[in-house]
Amino acid sequence: MPEGRSLGALATALGASLEGDPTMLVRGVAPLGEAGPDQISFVTSSKAVAEAQSTRAGALVVSKEFSGAPCALLRCDDPQLAVIMLLRVFHPALPVPPGVHPTAIVSDSATIDQSARIGPCAVVEAGARIGAEARLFPYVYIGEGSVVGDGSVLYPGVVVREGVRLGRRVIVHSGAVLGADGFGYAFDGRAHQKIPQVGGVVIEDDVEIGANTTIDRASVGNTTVRKGAKIDNLVQIAHHVTVGEHTVIAAQTGIAGSTQIGNRVILAGQVGIHDHVRVGDGAMVAGQSGITKDVPAGAQVMGFPARPAAEARKTYGAMPRLPELIKTVRALEHRLAALEQRLG
Amino acid sequence: MPEGRSLGALATALGASLEGDPTMLVRGVAPLGEAGPDQISFVTSSKAVAEAQSTRAGALVVSKEFSGAPCALLRCDDPQLAVIMLLRVFHPALPVPPGVHPTAIVSDSATIDQSARIGPCAVVEAGARIGAEARLFPYVYIGEGSVVGDGSVLYPGVVVREGVRLGRRVIVHSGAVLGADGFGYAFDGRAHQKIPQVGGVVIEDDVEIGANTTIDRASVGNTTVRKGAKIDNLVQIAHHVTVGEHTVIAAQTGIAGSTQIGNRVILAGQVGIHDHVRVGDGAMVAGQSGITKDVPAGAQVMGFPARPAAEARKTYGAMPRLPELIKTVRALEHRLAALEQRLG
Amino acid sequence: MPEGRSLGALATALGASLEGDPTMLVRGVAPLGEAGPDQISFVTSSKAVAEAQSTRAGALVVSKEFSGAPCALLRCDDPQLAVIMLLRVFHPALPVPPGVHPTAIVSDSATIDQSARIGPCAVVEAGARIGAEARLFPYVYIGEGSVVGDGSVLYPGVVVREGVRLGRRVIVHSGAVLGADGFGYAFDGRAHQKIPQVGGVVIEDDVEIGANTTIDRASVGNTTVRKGAKIDNLVQIAHHVTVGEHTVIAAQTGIAGSTQIGNRVILAGQVGIHDHVRVGDGAMVAGQSGITKDVPAGAQVMGFPARPAAEARKTYGAMPRLPELIKTVRALEHRLAALEQRLG
Repeated sequence: MPEGRSLGALATALGASLEGDPTMLVRGVAPLGEAGPDQISFVTSSKAVAEAQSTRAGALVVSKEFSGAPCALLRCDDPQLAVIMLLRVFHPALPVPPGVHPTAIVSDSATIDQSARIGPCAVVEAGARIGAEARLFPYVYIGEGSVVGDGSVLYPGVVVREGVRLGRRVIVHSGAVLGADGFGYAFDGRAHQKIPQVGGVVIEDDVEIGANTTIDRASVGNTTVRKGAKIDNLVQIAHHVTVGEHTVIAAQTGIAGSTQIGNRVILAGQVGIHDHVRVGDGAMVAGQSGITKDVPAGAQVMGFPARPAAEARKTYGAMPRLPELIKTVRALEHRLAALEQRLG
Repeated sequence: MPEGRSLGALATALGASLEGDPTMLVRGVAPLGEAGPDQISFVTSSKAVAEAQSTRAGALVVSKEFSGAPCALLRCDDPQLAVIMLLRVFHPALPVPPGVHPTAIVSDSATIDQSARIGPCAVVEAGARIGAEARLFPYVYIGEGSVVGDGSVLYPGVVVREGVRLGRRVIVHSGAVLGADGFGYAFDGRAHQKIPQVGGVVIEDDVEIGANTTIDRASVGNTTVRKGAKIDNLVQIAHHVTVGEHTVIAAQTGIAGSTQIGNRVILAGQVGIHDHVRVGDGAMVAGQSGITKDVPAGAQVMGFPARPAAEARKTYGAMPRLPELIKTVRALEHRLAALEQRLG
Repeated sequence: MPEGRSLGALATALGASLEGDPTMLVRGVAPLGEAGPDQISFVTSSKAVAEAQSTRAGALVVSKEFSGAPCALLRCDDPQLAVIMLLRVFHPALPVPPGVHPTAIVSDSATIDQSARIGPCAVVEAGARIGAEARLFPYVYIGEGSVVGDGSVLYPGVVVREGVRLGRRVIVHSGAVLGADGFGYAFDGRAHQKIPQVGGVVIEDDVEIGANTTIDRASVGNTTVRKGAKIDNLVQIAHHVTVGEHTVIAAQTGIAGSTQIGNRVILAGQVGIHDHVRVGDGAMVAGQSGITKDVPAGAQVMGFPARPAAEARKTYGAMPRLPELIKTVRALEHRLAALEQRLG
């Protein structure tokens, strides 16, 4: 169990204004519905306001406007950022002792920074470089000539094929595969001939890549994920795709070859995007959308095929009325025919 | 090849009534279309009845009502459960010799039951516990403090991060990742700040988890899969989700954060479910549906966005008539305008 | 950097007619938008023609009909196949030294061809066979009795469970799982009883399987992928499915149990196909389609539920007009009612 902290000290750490007893001890952070009297919880969305009224938490991190909960309050300008600070207080990152595990297999021509930690059975091939304070968990594979930047963390089972460059502070979750061959063939009349995939993958600083996500290498040139982009689990990023800065891609989305996703784009879950398409900066794509052509910067789109979200919502809202509409039109036809007949 | 069994002995083992020669030897189980005269096959769905008429199988497991096949019959109250017994007869589970492979890397502070089997290159971190007759195949990673219950089987390459609890008789297929960080960030105006994911994952007894499926840890609290739930391959279960007892989730379905799936729910393949939604007990969701709001208990829903299945089927059935309907309405407009003009 | 080649030598190697200086040295292949004066690029689709006009590449591989680029040209009958030759010239496959890495764990009863290469920490179980010039990268698991054919390559972290047969020249990318249990249960009134999955998986010659793709073993009989089929990343192929020869399956597509996909079929990304369905030879299925019933040979289908593509495109094109159509029909009703009233 995390060590206790006084509410007063927490208020100071978070830059929050406190309504409650500053000497009260808090022993941990918990969800609204599960927190007890010695725990702190939080209200970071309007969905949570109702549940907060009946929380058993000892204290809550809330916005300046929040009212009504039966416990101490820490009011913050940005409750979500405050919760991040709160979690860091109770769950500080522990120092990672450096070193190469004796079962790791490291090529003589690889370069491992002295402050890096290489776990059991990790493999680092010839010419690869592992930066300062980087961490490879067990069964991480780093292919020939690939680079892992300073402070990056690769969880168990990550595969980085040859010629892939990861920037600094990149986090890659278990099972992600960076640099598998792109999916390209030419049919010669009898069989599919494989187009050699000899390009690379570039992952810039501060990118996070989810578990079992796949980012293929380009045939020529690079597949690129720009700085600060966040990619969830089971996402497919095909060869020669570019993902822009600070773009967010939710789980199970797939992006086909050579498509360019702009900066600060948000792709919700299970979106599918055709090849050779451009999605402009700041666009927002709703879950399960199918994108078949360019999306302008700032656009919000949804549906299959994706269209402006406001219109698409009207269309999907109207669809259930279609069966009845068909009957109505048939009745109108009969009534109109009757009138026409009457009038000769 | 499995050892031969007499039809009479099989009838006894299955509690079936036999129509045929009890001394006939059966040497294996095979699909209807592939079984030969010394094999037994089965009819467990109405789809298979027609194919059964021309099977070359020596015998069939069928229902009480089945009629017409050209071979011996074993009639059973529940043919599907009988097939399970049949397969267990021909493919008995072999005893697994216990022991820790010399290449496994087990922390001094981990606890491994003497009857457990730990395969080559498996890693068990500090404070982890592996129960009786549990089996870890090669490259299975068990993080700090995680627990694997009695009789559980983790196939090659499963990753269980720190602080994850697996119950008894849990089966986890290769490449599944339990406890990777949930996908949560707060944008601070310049970049996405990672919300620490310090919660856990709880997998209860008798759960089965498919290959390359990902079940993320919660930010706070737990992601929970309740007893008897069955999860197929490539499924995404986000942070703080609850999956109810005996719920079945088919391949490539994704469930977003904090959503609660009830008991005995059936989610078909490629379903997408929004965050913070509740799907009631016994609900059935058709393949590729997109669920954006709560689903009542017992409801059957389909489509995007998901609606009651009976209505949705009508809507999807009517959609192909829409282009013609538009023409019909335009013609009606013209005819009506003509009438109106005539009448002044 | 690859060694330089003269344009003249490249033209000869590709069987191309050269328009330009045969002594010009080319040092590599790059995408149109990135190639410099000492690199060669290519125009293999009509989408690329416009971009080619402003390329900085020193030379281009183009079709016989292409015109207009500001550089040397290598004209070819089939530019895409020529690019494959070109990439092989600049990136020749290197010979792979045979041998079993000392950290690999190979059963005494396994058979490894002397020309095969077995990487660090690979596991080959009892009775398995690895063919000539096959290559297993680190952490590849080959289960009991499984077979890897001559010249096949299994990238890091591939799992091949027991009783799986891979043909010759099969390529399996990292994280793919072949032979995990199919997803089958029978509910006995209280819990889901697992149907034993004791069948196999057969992968024929020249198949390529993408990263983190899952191909389940059959309950009885086999799951089969026929020769020359190409399967992208994160694809789910359920138990007892058959994928035909030279069929192409794009990323994140899922095929449910016992479905049969014909030869030379093309399934685009994120397609979902029901169980027990047949997709005929040469069919083409658009991205995100949902297939619920048989698809005839040669058909082109799209949408949910999938219908003939030409019709479906009309329907999807008409859908945005539905909200307006409802208003139009309501207005028609009023006008018609007014007429009817006037006429008594």
